[in-house]
Amino acid sequence: MNYDHFFAEAIDALRKERRYRTFAEIERDARHFPRAVWHSPGGPRDIVVWCSNDYLGMGSHPAVIEAMCGAAQARGAGAGGTRNISGNSHEIVMLERELADLHGKESGLVFTSGYISNDTGISTIVKLIPDCVVLSDELNHNSMIEGVRHGGRQKAIFRHNDLDHLEELLQAAGDRPKLIAFESVYSMDGDISPINGICDLAERYGAMTYLDEVHAVGMYGARGGGVAERDGAMHRVDVIEGTLGKAFGVVGGYITGKRVIIDAVRSYAPGFIFTTALPPAVAAAAAASVRHLKDSQAEREGQRAQVAKVKAALAAAGLPQLETPTHIVPVMVGDAKACKMASDLLLAEYGIYIQPINYPTVPRGSERLRITPTPFHDDALIAHLATALSDVWERLELPYADRVVERANSRRVALGPAPIPLPVAGG
Amino acid sequence: MNYDHFFAEAIDALRKERRYRTFAEIERDARHFPRAVWHSPGGPRDIVVWCSNDYLGMGSHPAVIEAMCGAAQARGAGAGGTRNISGNSHEIVMLERELADLHGKESGLVFTSGYISNDTGISTIVKLIPDCVVLSDELNHNSMIEGVRHGGRQKAIFRHNDLDHLEELLQAAGDRPKLIAFESVYSMDGDISPINGICDLAERYGAMTYLDEVHAVGMYGARGGGVAERDGAMHRVDVIEGTLGKAFGVVGGYITGKRVIIDAVRSYAPGFIFTTALPPAVAAAAAASVRHLKDSQAEREGQRAQVAKVKAALAAAGLPQLETPTHIVPVMVGDAKACKMASDLLLAEYGIYIQPINYPTVPRGSERLRITPTPFHDDALIAHLATALSDVWERLELPYADRVVERANSRRVALGPAPIPLPVAGG
Repeated sequence: MNYDHFFAEAIDALRKERRYRTFAEIERDARHFPRAVWHSPGGPRDIVVWCSNDYLGMGSHPAVIEAMCGAAQARGAGAGGTRNISGNSHEIVMLERELADLHGKESGLVFTSGYISNDTGISTIVKLIPDCVVLSDELNHNSMIEGVRHGGRQKAIFRHNDLDHLEELLQAAGDRPKLIAFESVYSMDGDISPINGICDLAERYGAMTYLDEVHAVGMYGARGGGVAERDGAMHRVDVIEGTLGKAFGVVGGYITGKRVIIDAVRSYAPGFIFTTALPPAVAAAAAASVRHLKDSQAEREGQRAQVAKVKAALAAAGLPQLETPTHIVPVMVGDAKACKMASDLLLAEYGIYIQPINYPTVPRGSERLRITPTPFHDDALIAHLATALSDVWERLELPYADRVVERANSRRVALGPAPIPLPVAGG
Repeated sequence: MNYDHFFAEAIDALRKERRYRTFAEIERDARHFPRAVWHSPGGPRDIVVWCSNDYLGMGSHPAVIEAMCGAAQARGAGAGGTRNISGNSHEIVMLERELADLHGKESGLVFTSGYISNDTGISTIVKLIPDCVVLSDELNHNSMIEGVRHGGRQKAIFRHNDLDHLEELLQAAGDRPKLIAFESVYSMDGDISPINGICDLAERYGAMTYLDEVHAVGMYGARGGGVAERDGAMHRVDVIEGTLGKAFGVVGGYITGKRVIIDAVRSYAPGFIFTTALPPAVAAAAAASVRHLKDSQAEREGQRAQVAKVKAALAAAGLPQLETPTHIVPVMVGDAKACKMASDLLLAEYGIYIQPINYPTVPRGSERLRITPTPFHDDALIAHLATALSDVWERLELPYADRVVERANSRRVALGPAPIPLPVAGG
């Protein structure tokens, strides 16, 4: 039997829908962040990265790099085993204490990625609560969706950030145990959830809360504890999940919470138990980053200032940005092919790298360029970005502010979160 | 509603069964591998690690550490994004080429861990094949079990390494598409699967093959391609999965295969798409390790020599080792409490760290100390190990060779693979 055609057809389907992805191969330059070299078809080219989730440039911070290299030299390149079998390095234990402290919780637990922390974290928590109903925001990240699915419990999806709808669903769940799973900053639209409002409902209806702060940790709150810290809500949330791979600039994920919850996840989660621990070098680098951002306000203030300037420059140019209260600046295109063309043109002719965001990461019709200014995108780079975008918008005759943003907003809720549409039934 | 008791009860259940796990906190010493410092309750203590999966000590190899530090300094501590959104570093692209070459395949794809490569790799492959039946060895690792489960296809479990049983199941599956999922070296018993025999059956019955070589890559075959390389079977296997976190000494996982298969997984696997890429520093370190082991035989020969010496020393002492054709040396205890006591005594009084392996990693009644000698466990360390084990066996009155090994062997097949028994129904 020939199996190739199954895979070839799956790829063809993506090409036909113009959502086959090619990855831009780049070499970031730690000494000149956010600059990088792009391995273009015609050879190496200098570019500026405008779409990184290394939101504060901490991946290039000397203290972080030094911590990584120091631990690699002293301890070696890897952990050598699972956490249980010789992989429980001093560095990862220290990192977990740093993270628990960051969120004002008793315990922290580090996973190989934010993805796996949500997937195995949520699924394990709900498996440990008999008859639990999971209430999940419709725009939750794929890793949370998978966690809820793998938990095998009944789920109820509430409309994005809609407290009334959440309350209806909580009422409908009656006396059953309930877990509310939501994010603070939603990555693609850059909006923020009403954490205290959700905690009010959780208290009123006796629900447990699980908050994903991956796009907020390091950047919001006086010590970088996230939006829950900023809003004075950290102590109200049962489990706070975060990542070491975005504003902290390294890689890995974690959860924090009461000791008894974290210990149960530690003891039961297959995606934690049966996997090699993160290297001491990674843990040391992440801990250095977390520690630095607990004290230093310079990166957060620098980011806010440059984000405001980018938003002002794009507004002045009449470009269709989605208004956000965060550091995420989506510029709406609304069409997969046009979005890819704009991105290609920016990269090839202006040395500006902004990956097109197409379905399934965002709903069809809301394709966009997602811009993430860091403290290191200086005023000259911002001016160049605004000029380049304006040029590209004219050359490709892309729609301006009024039309696209409206369309995207009207479609977003109707379409809901984007699952991976595998071209088979029963998957 | 109070949720704490759900978690507290789950932990209590583990304590009652004597399988609550505590992790030994250690600092590996890269300059004196396999030596480490154990953060004992009474303060720091010098120990020798005898249970690491850094099988060849490559995590401490200067070329590997240098590659990690060089890339960290040049590129920063992290990748800065998913593979699609600015995280596709030159280093990870080079690593994938190195891995494809290692296994003689067209393409390679790197994941954040071997766990996730199996979980999202297998589930995506079988979702792309309508009506697929998965034939899975009963002793497959948890990550493969989860991958099969998350794929949602019909599965048939064949008795461990049993070609007759596999053939029966292949016949029963008739004309439907079939995937055979198996490992080369089984981690806990240290035995090896009949790869060519399985490939014969796959060809006869038109099945696709997926082989996990995580406990073999780097160590078997002339270039470290694994048991399939050693047995001349690499070209017969459709997908070869491996890890960068064991013999290669770093962290991360991968699959290799035909371009069309790998490209489909790249395009559809949620655990690949929606997660931050491994840092360039990790990719560079792993590539240096893979490259080194393609040429150098010294590590493999050194390992074989020291493994043979350990086996001989334990045999001379009459200790109940499970005979294996590999580098894995299980010494059987057969009881969770005794296994933990032996491990504690070895660590506290002899400075020998061998984590007890209890249920659910192995079936109840087959609890063991799993010893993994590296090229760097010299003759003096081996002599010390044999003496210490003999002492501990006498002091704790543990059973000797004849009794335990028989019991373990007779129970193994009957019990089958150990699922995580979450204390709830419907999980």
